[in-house]
This record gives sequence, structure tokens and C-alpha cells, in this order.
Amino acid sequence: MASETSGRRRAPVLTPQADDFPRWYQDVLNKAELADNGPVRGTMVIRPYAYALWERMVDEVDARIKDAGAENAYFPLFIPESYLQREAEHVEGFSPELAVVTVGGGKELEEPVVVRPTSETVIGEFMAKWIQSYRDLPLLLNQWANVVRWELRPRTFLRTSEFLWQEGHTAHATEGDARAYARRILDEVYRDFMVEVLAIPVLCGVKIPQERFAGAINTLTCEAMMADGKALQMGTSHELGQNFATAFDIDYLDETGAQQLCWTTSWGVSTRMMGGLIMAHGDDDGLRVPPRLAAVQVVVLVVRDDDEGSVTAAARRLVQELGDVGVRARLDDRVSTPFGRRATDWELKGVPVRVELGPRDVADGQVVVVRRDRPGKESIRVDALAGQVPVLLDSLQRSLHDEALARRDERTVDAATIEEAAGAAADGFARIPWDAVGDAGIERLAAEAVTVRCLITADGGVPDSVDDPDLIAVVARSY
Amino acid sequence: MASETSGRRRAPVLTPQADDFPRWYQDVLNKAELADNGPVRGTMVIRPYAYALWERMVDEVDARIKDAGAENAYFPLFIPESYLQREAEHVEGFSPELAVVTVGGGKELEEPVVVRPTSETVIGEFMAKWIQSYRDLPLLLNQWANVVRWELRPRTFLRTSEFLWQEGHTAHATEGDARAYARRILDEVYRDFMVEVLAIPVLCGVKIPQERFAGAINTLTCEAMMADGKALQMGTSHELGQNFATAFDIDYLDETGAQQLCWTTSWGVSTRMMGGLIMAHGDDDGLRVPPRLAAVQVVVLVVRDDDEGSVTAAARRLVQELGDVGVRARLDDRVSTPFGRRATDWELKGVPVRVELGPRDVADGQVVVVRRDRPGKESIRVDALAGQVPVLLDSLQRSLHDEALARRDERTVDAATIEEAAGAAADGFARIPWDAVGDAGIERLAAEAVTVRCLITADGGVPDSVDDPDLIAVVARSY
Repeated sequence: MASETSGRRRAPVLTPQADDFPRWYQDVLNKAELADNGPVRGTMVIRPYAYALWERMVDEVDARIKDAGAENAYFPLFIPESYLQREAEHVEGFSPELAVVTVGGGKELEEPVVVRPTSETVIGEFMAKWIQSYRDLPLLLNQWANVVRWELRPRTFLRTSEFLWQEGHTAHATEGDARAYARRILDEVYRDFMVEVLAIPVLCGVKIPQERFAGAINTLTCEAMMADGKALQMGTSHELGQNFATAFDIDYLDETGAQQLCWTTSWGVSTRMMGGLIMAHGDDDGLRVPPRLAAVQVVVLVVRDDDEGSVTAAARRLVQELGDVGVRARLDDRVSTPFGRRATDWELKGVPVRVELGPRDVADGQVVVVRRDRPGKESIRVDALAGQVPVLLDSLQRSLHDEALARRDERTVDAATIEEAAGAAADGFARIPWDAVGDAGIERLAAEAVTVRCLITADGGVPDSVDDPDLIAVVARSY
Repeated sequence: MASETSGRRRAPVLTPQADDFPRWYQDVLNKAELADNGPVRGTMVIRPYAYALWERMVDEVDARIKDAGAENAYFPLFIPESYLQREAEHVEGFSPELAVVTVGGGKELEEPVVVRPTSETVIGEFMAKWIQSYRDLPLLLNQWANVVRWELRPRTFLRTSEFLWQEGHTAHATEGDARAYARRILDEVYRDFMVEVLAIPVLCGVKIPQERFAGAINTLTCEAMMADGKALQMGTSHELGQNFATAFDIDYLDETGAQQLCWTTSWGVSTRMMGGLIMAHGDDDGLRVPPRLAAVQVVVLVVRDDDEGSVTAAARRLVQELGDVGVRARLDDRVSTPFGRRATDWELKGVPVRVELGPRDVADGQVVVVRRDRPGKESIRVDALAGQVPVLLDSLQRSLHDEALARRDERTVDAATIEEAAGAAADGFARIPWDAVGDAGIERLAAEAVTVRCLITADGGVPDSVDDPDLIAVVARSY
């Protein structure tokens, strides 16, 4: 196996991360053809390459949700304004972000309707209808949908006025059941998906009261470090206590025939994970997609062809062979476009492995293999390719995860004082005893745009509550 | 193989179809737990059992769309009002049905935004941006989304203010390409899915000018006959000519460097197909789901168990064995609920095959098998079940299709005059030479609530245009 180290240095198509990270992000969105801004402020267009990644995220998350016993359903986009008002904290939290329909079918509506910012209220109404007895519990529902939260400082994928997500909504007989399920979703669905598929190490913990979902008694979260050291909240799972059960009369008859209020949860992940994917793994050459997520794991490039088209024919056979061993491979036979441009484009799009093939390679019975996670090229015997690629993809999956984890470890500081924590959070995460923070500490951090991302236990676990002793606060700047 | 003909007559849980078909439909929606009305007029809640069927529809249609070369993307829910006004017929057609957002983030919006009723306009804007040269064509896009059309006479799944659908949007270099692609979608995606998976025979033809999509130069349609003899439009594919290309400047440089306008198409199927499924195959006992669509193809019912739980154990093994041969099987071990109620419930839900198992059956090494498409029960050796079920499902798939086809044939009349056609359409479809209709004929039919569903060629094919000679008009009442 010969190894060439002919670099892949060309004029950069992206602003380097170190120069201007937000601009690098915007460049990746444009140049890798991931997304455009929509015509209405804060909305976005998800282009096919990015949407294929979102579809893969949906498939993987959906399978885990179904394994956790929840069933998909669909609830209306439009919610009567009065529904939101039934839960005081909820309406207070969401009012400033609502889009309101006042005209329908050419007429002023008698009661304006809100475009759902989230669906606790409308789903609560139907839970109340469907749940009669303890036999109907737990009721485990999920929906994939678009939601709208009017956004004053939009940023594609991270904060958009409309985004796509799943929202789970469950009702349970006891507080303990509800708590266990909210944690199960965080752990078996979100953390597992993010670590195993997205290759993003996440910290799981609880939010401090000020950062809870509007209407929740406890919010669990997955937080990840991006390449610039900032935190991104990747997904949350909420215990709603009996707040919504009270507001919507979600009750049941227990085994003794007594009426009881349910305990509910809600939990969601969104297209925001696309932003996390880009910012956790991207480098100065573009996106880097972990193989388990990639819609295209391997692109087979015809460098140029001979008159008989034998290179394209050989490339097509390789795509077939790779497909036969379960690899998602794609052919690029656009020989009329310069090879360099195509190679750069696949690099920008972050396809994990590039296989290059020209007339000379076909004659020699070999191909050139380029991994997206490291510089350099390797020649491999053509008949060994289908056997080696799955191994290579596994290794790449691990390497992206380990690189992200190493960065997080490197850029996480143990701080003893608020001042130390505020300083360290300029460049990454700081860990500080929760006892040492207090209201004054939160205020001091806020002055530096630093927030408590989550509380964790001393051994890195998810606490039962914010009142547990010896909790660690992880603080950082965030998206 | 013994055959018992112990009937399954019980007190009817549904209004019989013959008594009141619309009420039967409403009963099925409620009793089979398919859907509820949403709180905002005309909206619906799709419950888990129905949503699982919709997910199967999405998977099957999506795979065919991808085979036809289109890629999925996502465009915003909100469209500036001004966009719709750029295409005169389009805005005229959709204005009466629009939902308009006038308040966002607590403020009156400067320009109101429309909740998409369909996305030709916003997608047109981006096609114009993305298409530069003939090399970018054809551009084949699709999106799965919710759309809103304010509905004055809503009917769950058939006409709702919000519904789920896919909308394909493509741009081509020539009129011929656009036409061929619109027909390909109709044939290879819609007709194939409806006939092969939904087991619903559909007539494919062209709409008369009055029934075209607002902004189209030609609309192709799939029309099916429901159990009451009425027609349901199941899906449409439109040639949009250069109307939207003109309105949104969708143009390209051809091989000679000359600027040319594109030709576009759009096409869609929606949750309306759920209504078609119910009304094409349902009977007085409930829904009947064709096996290729069914999320649950076989339910294995534990009639009652012994103290050791050996019946449940045997049933669980059967579910596993069926799963191993690729059958989607589900266990019903809720022995605390009366068996009769569970059997009726699965019948209501239309699960193709029911396998019943009690202590006696386990002792005898047999199970009782009930097909949803015909009365009676059969005993089968337990070790033969996994081998026989796939054959049985195939036979059931065919039988549902053939039954629907036989009904359509029976209830389709060849009419020579408008009067004859108007009379026949009271009970089914009438075929009449298009030449014999004319404007007066259309008006006469309208008086009986009968419309031209589509025009077909003499041999049942899809005409190239409404001006072809010797066309047949298929007329009917419709949903």
C-alpha cells in the first residue's frame, strides 16, 4: 500500500475558522450548498444535500424513539390563542415569539390562532380526551413537525423562525415514571444518537431553574462543545410535573377508582443539530460528516476517462461492490467538470471517503483513497477496496468523535472562583462547584455572556435535581 | 386444514355503509381511532394507528420519487403575500383559501405572510437562483410538508384546512422534457403506488381546462372509485408551461449561450389518500388495509392463557417467526380485555390477518387464522404458519384490488348522451365521448353535482392533450 503525501493545498474557498468563525460557518452553508435564507426574515431553505443528512438524523432518532415505546402521531399547526394562556409560565415564555394568524379564508378570524411554537397545549387537550384509566398509561406520543418561533437574531439551523423537529409528549401515572422516562429519552435516544451517530461527545445534565423550559419543573439537556469552544444545546427533555395536567385536566382513574392527575413530559431535538454537526466537525476545508450519518459515505470519482469509457465502467462496478457490502456509495462521472473542482466540492460537503480512479489506475488495478479526516492519499488494490472501506469508515467515525472529545477535554478548565470561570469560558468550558455560583455568580457570568449550561454530578452523571449536594456547574458561552 | 364457518356476526359497531355512507366514514375514523377534529375549524389530529399507515405511504412514495431522480429539500412555511401575486391565475385560485399571519414576535408585520397553500412561488424564487445553465437542468426537487388551505366544508383526510403532502417541483430545458417528467411521476410514482401498494385501481387521465390547477397548462390526475360509487382525486401532476418561469425569471443559458426560459412541473399526493384507503376498501366491519401497506400485517391474539403463560410464550414465538420471514406481526396478549372486544377492534383497524391462539390450540399444535377480506376461520398447523402467511398476504393484496376493480367495472356505464351520463353518475362512473359534452353538457352535469373527472383515450390511456380526437370523458360525483 503506497502512500503519497501530495498535499491538498489550494486557494481556500472558505474563510479560515481562526480568522472569523461565524463567517466560516456562513461560508460552509453557501459553498457546500447546505442552506439559503428564506424570503421571510429568519426562515431557511434546506437544500438537498443538507436535507439528506436531516433525513438520516430523522431515521436514526425515530428508530430510537420507537424502541423507547413511543408512537408517532400528528397534531395541528394551528392552536387557539386561548390554549396557550391556560398554563401561565408557558404563555409568558412563548408570547414574545409567536406568529399569529388573524385572517383565514378572506375573513378576520373571531379568535386568532397561533402557529405552534411547541405543542404541549394542543396535545394536552387530546391526552385529556384519550386517557380514562390507569390502563391507558403511560401514553407515549411523538410527532415530527415544523414549529415557528419569531426570531429577532436568526442564524441558519441554530436559531430560525421556522425549524423542523420532533417533539415527544408523554403522560404517566406517577412522578417517578415521568422522571424515569424523561431520563430514558435523554440517555437512550439523544445521548446515544449524538455520541454514536453524530460522533459528538455531549455533556448530559440538568438546567438551572432560570434556564428551564417554560412550564417545566425540571429540564435535562445535552450540551456539546463546538470548534470555537462555545456550547450548543443539542436537545432537551423536560419533566412538566402536573402543570399541564392541571391546565388541561389530564387525569385518570387509578386501580382503586380514585381520580388522579397525570404527570407529563416533553422532549425534542431539531434541525439545530445540523448546526451542531457543522460546527463540531467542520474544518477549514468544509464539513466533515461522520460515516454513520453520511447519506453518501464514499464518492467514487472518475478523474478522467478513456475513449472506451472503461474508467467510468470500472467506477460504476466499484459503486456496486461497495453497495453490496452495505456502503452508501455514489458515482461522480462528471468528467466535463475539472477534477480539482469536483474534489474540492466533495471535500466541502464532507463526504468521509473519496475514491479516485483514472485510466492509469484501471490499468494498474488500483485506486487512490482519500480520507476526509486526515491529509494524504493512499493507493489500494481495486479488489481489496470493498473489504477495506467498512473498516476505514469505522475508524473515521471513531477519529471524528475522539478529536471532538480531545478538544473538549483540552478546553475545559476546573475553576474555583467565578472570576476564573468567567475567564476560562472565553475559550471553552469551565467547571465550578455549583455552591460557589449563586445569584451573584450568575449575574457576573452574564456580564461576559457566559451562562450555566448544565449541572452535573461529581462523576459526570445527570443529577436528580438542582438541589443535590456537590454538583458541578459547567459554564460557557453558547449559541 | 379444517374450515369452520362460525360467522362473526355481532352487534354492529359502525353505521352500515348502505344506511349512511358519510356516517359510516365518520364512525370508522372514531372507532378505529384514526383521527379526531382539531380545535381550530377544519384541522385534524392523526392518531398513531393512522399515522403509522401514513408513514408507510410516505416511505413507499418517497422511494419511488427518489427512483425518478428527484431529491428532497425543505422550503419555508411562510411566503410573502407579494410572491403569490406574481402569477395571476395562481393568486386568483388560492386567495379565497389563504391563512395570513399579520403579527409576528408581538408586532404587526410590515408585509403580511401567507401560510403556504402550495409552494410553486417560493420554490420558483430559488429555482431562479440555482439554475444558471443547461447543465443545471433538469432540476428535480420534492418536499414533504404541511400546507394550509382554509376549508369551509372540512371532512377529515378528504378536505382539511391543514394537510400533509409531498409536493414535487421540477424545471426542464424543454416543454417535451417537462411533459415527459410530469407523466413519468403520474405513472411510475402515483399509479404504481396506488395500484400495487394501496390496491386501488385508478383511472389516469387529463383534467378539462376548468378543473386544472391554478397556473397549470395541463393537469394529469389519478381518479379512484370509492365504495359508494363516488370518485376521489387521489393525486395530480401538473405541467406549468412557462407560467411560473416567466413570473420568477427561471431561465438558463443554453449550449449556444442564449438565454432561455425553463418549463416547470409540480405534482402532489396528500393525506387525502388516507380517506381513499378507508373508502375504497372499508366494509361494515371497518377498515381493510392491504398487506403491502399495513404497518401491522398480522396480529397474533392470545385468546386466553394458562397458569404457566404458555400460550403467550407460544404467541411470542410465532410473532418472532413471522418477523423472521419478513412479516410485520404484532402480539396482542391483553388477556384482561375480553377476547371478543379485541377481535372486533383489530377488525375495525383492518389488520389483514388475525391469528388466534388459546390453550387448546397450543395443546393441539394449531392456530386459528382469520382473513380480513372474507368471512370464516381456518385452523392451520402451527409449524406451517410462517410458511403460509406470506402467500396468504399476497392473495389478500390481490383480492382487495380485484374487488375494487370489479366494483368499478360493474358501476361504470357507457353513456351516449349527457342525460344518460348524468343519470348513471348517481351510482358510479359514466363514460361519454368528450365531443358529446361541450359547455352545455358540463353545465347540465353540474346541476346534478356531477363533474368530468378526467379525459382518457379510447383504449384507457392518458391523452397528450384535451384536444386529442376521440377522447372519453369519465364523469362522476366526487369528494
